[in-house]
Amino acid sequence: MKAFVLDSRLAADCFVLHDTPHYILLRMNNALLPWLILVPKVEVNEWYELDKACQDRMMGLVNRLSAFIKQEYTLDKLNIATIGNIVSQMHIHIVGRRQDDYCWPNVVWGAEGREDIPADEVKALASKVKEYLQANEK
Amino acid sequence: MKAFVLDSRLAADCFVLHDTPHYILLRMNNALLPWLILVPKVEVNEWYELDKACQDRMMGLVNRLSAFIKQEYTLDKLNIATIGNIVSQMHIHIVGRRQDDYCWPNVVWGAEGREDIPADEVKALASKVKEYLQANEK
Repeated sequence: MKAFVLDSRLAADCFVLHDTPHYILLRMNNALLPWLILVPKVEVNEWYELDKACQDRMMGLVNRLSAFIKQEYTLDKLNIATIGNIVSQMHIHIVGRRQDDYCWPNVVWGAEGREDIPADEVKALASKVKEYLQANEK
Repeated sequence: MKAFVLDSRLAADCFVLHDTPHYILLRMNNALLPWLILVPKVEVNEWYELDKACQDRMMGLVNRLSAFIKQEYTLDKLNIATIGNIVSQMHIHIVGRRQDDYCWPNVVWGAEGREDIPADEVKALASKVKEYLQANEK
């Protein structure tokens, strides 16, 4: 099996929260919004090309990560998407939105607005999300 | 059980291709792109709030509709998303993208550009997609 290499743009724009045999969980480096990105370690680029086991695993993670950010932040809506027009490596956005956030009601993709996240916040979030996923395993 | 009422904005912007007990399948009235919208007949607004049977059904449909539009059109990428910042009624976009389409590589949500679809094309598409879904039932 070939080693999985995270796309260079995702690597540049995000922090790694959790790296596992099946997926990498990223935090977009934008403190203005809770914005997670789930990257399954696969070679295909389209959601429907994932095999059933992988889809089920990713759906379970999307559900748990959605519940996690709803619990951690005050949010009005979740935006879940797999787009890939710019970065073709398969990745799933899970973005928490507020009616007073910088680009509401528009989508975040392509919207300007960004603030660095302090390293200690990333570290704390990584611990929290890993604990949450472990405590809520299917 | 309360009758399900399609959101008025979705109803205004789209054609109904298929109305079933569990979901409505829409075609966005924009001839510039193959753009389907799947509306599960549920009361919740977030993907992770759907029960497992509904999620499984919607995932099966997303997979089959993805394969359908890849087969019907020449496409470079599929964009799959549930956003709901403007229309909160749960709906899933399945959009076929081409590198020469009017808003590539940007997302379609919020991008300007639209052309009416002729009624006979909608009718033909509705027949085709229903046949495809029936022939490829799980």
